[in-house]
Amino acid sequence: MQILKDKILSQGKVLPGNILNVGSFLNQQVDIELYNEIGKEFYRRFSDDHVSRILTIEASGIGIACITAQYFNVPVVFARKFRAKNLDSNLYFTEITSYTHGIDYTITVPRDYLNPDDFVLLIDDFLANGCALEGLVALVKIAGASLVGAGAVIEKGFQQGGKRIRGMGIRLESLAIIDSMSPEEGIKFRE
Amino acid sequence: MQILKDKILSQGKVLPGNILNVGSFLNQQVDIELYNEIGKEFYRRFSDDHVSRILTIEASGIGIACITAQYFNVPVVFARKFRAKNLDSNLYFTEITSYTHGIDYTITVPRDYLNPDDFVLLIDDFLANGCALEGLVALVKIAGASLVGAGAVIEKGFQQGGKRIRGMGIRLESLAIIDSMSPEEGIKFRE
Repeated sequence: MQILKDKILSQGKVLPGNILNVGSFLNQQVDIELYNEIGKEFYRRFSDDHVSRILTIEASGIGIACITAQYFNVPVVFARKFRAKNLDSNLYFTEITSYTHGIDYTITVPRDYLNPDDFVLLIDDFLANGCALEGLVALVKIAGASLVGAGAVIEKGFQQGGKRIRGMGIRLESLAIIDSMSPEEGIKFRE
Repeated sequence: MQILKDKILSQGKVLPGNILNVGSFLNQQVDIELYNEIGKEFYRRFSDDHVSRILTIEASGIGIACITAQYFNVPVVFARKFRAKNLDSNLYFTEITSYTHGIDYTITVPRDYLNPDDFVLLIDDFLANGCALEGLVALVKIAGASLVGAGAVIEKGFQQGGKRIRGMGIRLESLAIIDSMSPEEGIKFRE
């Protein structure tokens, strides 16, 4: 998606340790026109797949998921992250490990918000190690719903998440895939 | 806002302890058509106020803020909540106490995302004790920006937040104000 790649090149900051800061337009500060283009692009790619629900994870995925949901005209559900292990029996839950923060989370969705007859599209802003997305895949399976696929805005192609998700036979659409990046050499996208 | 009140009456669940569960349409699960109506209503109320930026707080305010921002065509910024006190010098920060969770948080916004020439509209889903909103007011003041006002989707009128925010001379627009609620007697809205 060219306007996204242009934005990453012009406003993204590559920091040491393979960190890409795109907070000025994709996360903590939201460029709402870009969000709309991202939502339309996800709709273009998944419009024939009978999506009935969009599932994401708090916090930074929520805005993109809501904007995208307008084009599909379906509800959004977001999974909550907890450190606690005392869980309500009305929740679907699974455990994930965040490599970014070095800790384990339990992620949950109320059972009422994910049904066996749902066709679920997963949406998130970033795909790196893929742990958050794998957690969402697990929640869809536990609920007995059908997984349509997953959309990531930016995939760090040099990390293992994309390979693992695609290796599970899941249709993954990433709008920009970064094959390499460094403060010295900049960002190289996959063709 | 009548369609919001109707939705609260038909789908909200009043639980003991003055808890109103509207997760099925306003928080963890998002009714995207309702969100669009909410966004339009905030725009109707603040369209003459030269809003240049919408500020909210993670997590459940993000979706409403993004949908609302489309009508204003301005960026959204969300404040992050931390338990930690080691903060980057590039951040504006203030402390708030969450009565719901019984703990203190530091909330932060990168300095680059809030400027002295900004006209800021605060948006959040719930207003109860008003601590989150007061924290956002403090961030706007620290940044030297102008505060246009605040929009809350649901105000618990029997708690003190609304009175405190209005007492500070801030224009507060709540789309539904609940004056009383209980599992036995249901929900009564302010006229």
